[in-house]
Amino acid sequence: MPRWEQGAEDRLRAAALELFLANGYENVTVAQITERAGLARRTFSRYFADKRDVLFAGSEQLPGAFAEAVRKADAALTPLEALLGALERVGDALAERVAPLAAQRQAIIDASPELQERSRTKFGDVSDALDAALRRRGAAPSTAGMLADVGVAIFRTAFRRWVEQPDAAALSARVREAAAELGHALDRR
Amino acid sequence: MPRWEQGAEDRLRAAALELFLANGYENVTVAQITERAGLARRTFSRYFADKRDVLFAGSEQLPGAFAEAVRKADAALTPLEALLGALERVGDALAERVAPLAAQRQAIIDASPELQERSRTKFGDVSDALDAALRRRGAAPSTAGMLADVGVAIFRTAFRRWVEQPDAAALSARVREAAAELGHALDRR
Repeated sequence: MPRWEQGAEDRLRAAALELFLANGYENVTVAQITERAGLARRTFSRYFADKRDVLFAGSEQLPGAFAEAVRKADAALTPLEALLGALERVGDALAERVAPLAAQRQAIIDASPELQERSRTKFGDVSDALDAALRRRGAAPSTAGMLADVGVAIFRTAFRRWVEQPDAAALSARVREAAAELGHALDRR
Repeated sequence: MPRWEQGAEDRLRAAALELFLANGYENVTVAQITERAGLARRTFSRYFADKRDVLFAGSEQLPGAFAEAVRKADAALTPLEALLGALERVGDALAERVAPLAAQRQAIIDASPELQERSRTKFGDVSDALDAALRRRGAAPSTAGMLADVGVAIFRTAFRRWVEQPDAAALSARVREAAAELGHALDRR
């Protein structure tokens, strides 16, 4: 790799997020991203499939990571405890990786219906993986499906709160907070 | 309308579901559906946009129906109470309409990844509508989003249980049962 391409992936990602925020995701081309990063077009293709991939690269590993964390959880835990523990562990690992650019990324997704739809589909894949992992732990099928969807709802809420105030609490603490809030609301009926 | 086209929509729907179940959704054409129903191709186009529409016709009204039920709920209710009440009311109205063919329809969707994806997108629209309606009742944004997603998780679980045993309990009773099960699980942590 030539010396000037060192850190190319990070430079491309930073350039893309700046342009998406300034001009709107839909109006930015890959050529503009590579130009701003001072790199060649072919360099972009080495790291990303397309401009959407700049925002979602790595997310294809999330379903497997969540499912593995559920599988590895102590066998004595209830399905819900295993689920919440997985959300906390994978959440903190994810937070560490995405922290520097998480707020910008979220603002870009919130501004684009296409990206919101994409995000929802990604979380749908996470739910499917959690569902299967919970069944393997012995949860009844219809319970596993509900817990998986609820787990994703808790995680999305916790992630959003963490993005808004990343220094106020760890993502895992936000997961526990959201789960407690939900339990309290359901309990008060 | 000629006499022989009376009940055409129901005949087309019944024919389509039979063929989807027998041959797989992907392998059935609109021509086969109209032939089995003894109707002309143009009659199909009068009722359905395409063969997927046979399974999802009417579902575009669900987001609005759920949101309206949340808005009309007693102002003294908590957001969660308003949400669950809406799921119960709209659920029972939906159940009455879809009861005769609900089990076949669910089996067809469960067998097709494309249709499962479509179903998830439809429920995503319901979640967005519930989210907006809950905010309008004064729920904090990040709480409204979580409750909307959890409401959809509860509803999907309740709907599936009702489809499996439609005579054992009303859909509204299944909604209460699923919500109680979730509250109990969250409470036991």
